[in-house]
Amino acid sequence: MDGTGEAEGAQSRKGLTMERHFDDHLQALKYHLMKMSAIAEVMISDAIKAVVDRNEAMIPPVYQREEQVNHMQMEIDETCLTLIALHQPAAGDLRFILGAAKANAELERMADEAVNIVQRAEHLLTVPALKPFEILPEMGIISRGMVRDSLHAFVNRNVDLAREVLLRDDRLDDLRDAISAELTTYMTSDPLSVPRALDLLMISRYLERIGDHATNIAEIAIFVVEGRDVRHHADRK
Amino acid sequence: MDGTGEAEGAQSRKGLTMERHFDDHLQALKYHLMKMSAIAEVMISDAIKAVVDRNEAMIPPVYQREEQVNHMQMEIDETCLTLIALHQPAAGDLRFILGAAKANAELERMADEAVNIVQRAEHLLTVPALKPFEILPEMGIISRGMVRDSLHAFVNRNVDLAREVLLRDDRLDDLRDAISAELTTYMTSDPLSVPRALDLLMISRYLERIGDHATNIAEIAIFVVEGRDVRHHADRK
Repeated sequence: MDGTGEAEGAQSRKGLTMERHFDDHLQALKYHLMKMSAIAEVMISDAIKAVVDRNEAMIPPVYQREEQVNHMQMEIDETCLTLIALHQPAAGDLRFILGAAKANAELERMADEAVNIVQRAEHLLTVPALKPFEILPEMGIISRGMVRDSLHAFVNRNVDLAREVLLRDDRLDDLRDAISAELTTYMTSDPLSVPRALDLLMISRYLERIGDHATNIAEIAIFVVEGRDVRHHADRK
Repeated sequence: MDGTGEAEGAQSRKGLTMERHFDDHLQALKYHLMKMSAIAEVMISDAIKAVVDRNEAMIPPVYQREEQVNHMQMEIDETCLTLIALHQPAAGDLRFILGAAKANAELERMADEAVNIVQRAEHLLTVPALKPFEILPEMGIISRGMVRDSLHAFVNRNVDLAREVLLRDDRLDDLRDAISAELTTYMTSDPLSVPRALDLLMISRYLERIGDHATNIAEIAIFVVEGRDVRHHADRK
């Protein structure tokens, strides 16, 4: 082996090492996103329990987890910057990392919406329940599932799952319309119901927003895999 | 000049050309963001006019501009990807470009909020006005100013202006609380006012959200310049 060969060998070994480091960092990025998504899911679940089961004990953990999510968001952003700066990734990986930075922002906002829900719960638990819950629990289940599956679709580059998440958002919008109509009827027939009905109305909006954020992640997932932007097309199938 | 010198000269000229191209692309990116911000501002202004002046003619342009904004968003995202992939920018520039991709998403959502407002206006213009407007016009002026100045702060790396935008968000939140209290009183005292009051309440939320998006851009601006994350600190001064 001559000098050049040795240099090439070293270069290639160095390339392999860099590559392994890159893959390790990419795996760590995915892991942190999935962890953040799991925390957001628990926050949504707890927030819904606080409202539906009138369970005050569910409220403090939501605030605590918000701080954890905020911290994770900053770390994930830094990881994305470092990955790009150190490894100058190829086009496909670059698209994934930019997508991760965006998905990261969506997850943090879902956590904010869970906090918005418990703020309303704090008021609702001081007054008698307006009525038995029917629509809100279903909205909670759908939105949580959308959170989990949209992030799963992004991390695993699963376009079919991402498209399926997009479809579920329509159901969430229908439920929001149904609960709006129902609560408006309460408010017009009984003035005393207004403050509680407003709380419930806003909670339905927060759940709808969670669905919107999950939809955004699903669209990012499709964009990363197909390089095609489905965000602003009427027909997303 | 020997061969090596010539090669170095060519390399250096190539470097200069690449650099000029990079600066050109970066300028183009800033220009497109500022254009998009200007369109979002006009959309917000038109949406408020539709509501406050009961001017139906202001509604269609908002929908038309939404399509334009959606198209610009996709183009700006592609520009960010291309800039990073082609030029492998240094840490500071990379931070700015990632910030641009995020600010881009915020601008698109402001445009969405303007569309939400005109959707409510479509209903409001079919019924008599509930009351003269006092708070909503002020919220409109503040939120528009926040849009303009947050993007200006980002593009020009003006941290002082960014911090000033953050402070204005508190005023917007106070106005939202004031209008919520006022509209709740209307709803509890007059059942017939409920649908209109709900529209106005939601419009005040949309304006608050526009302020939130501007706040996000201001925080991105500070992050890009100072490399310090002010998003989740209680004291942002």
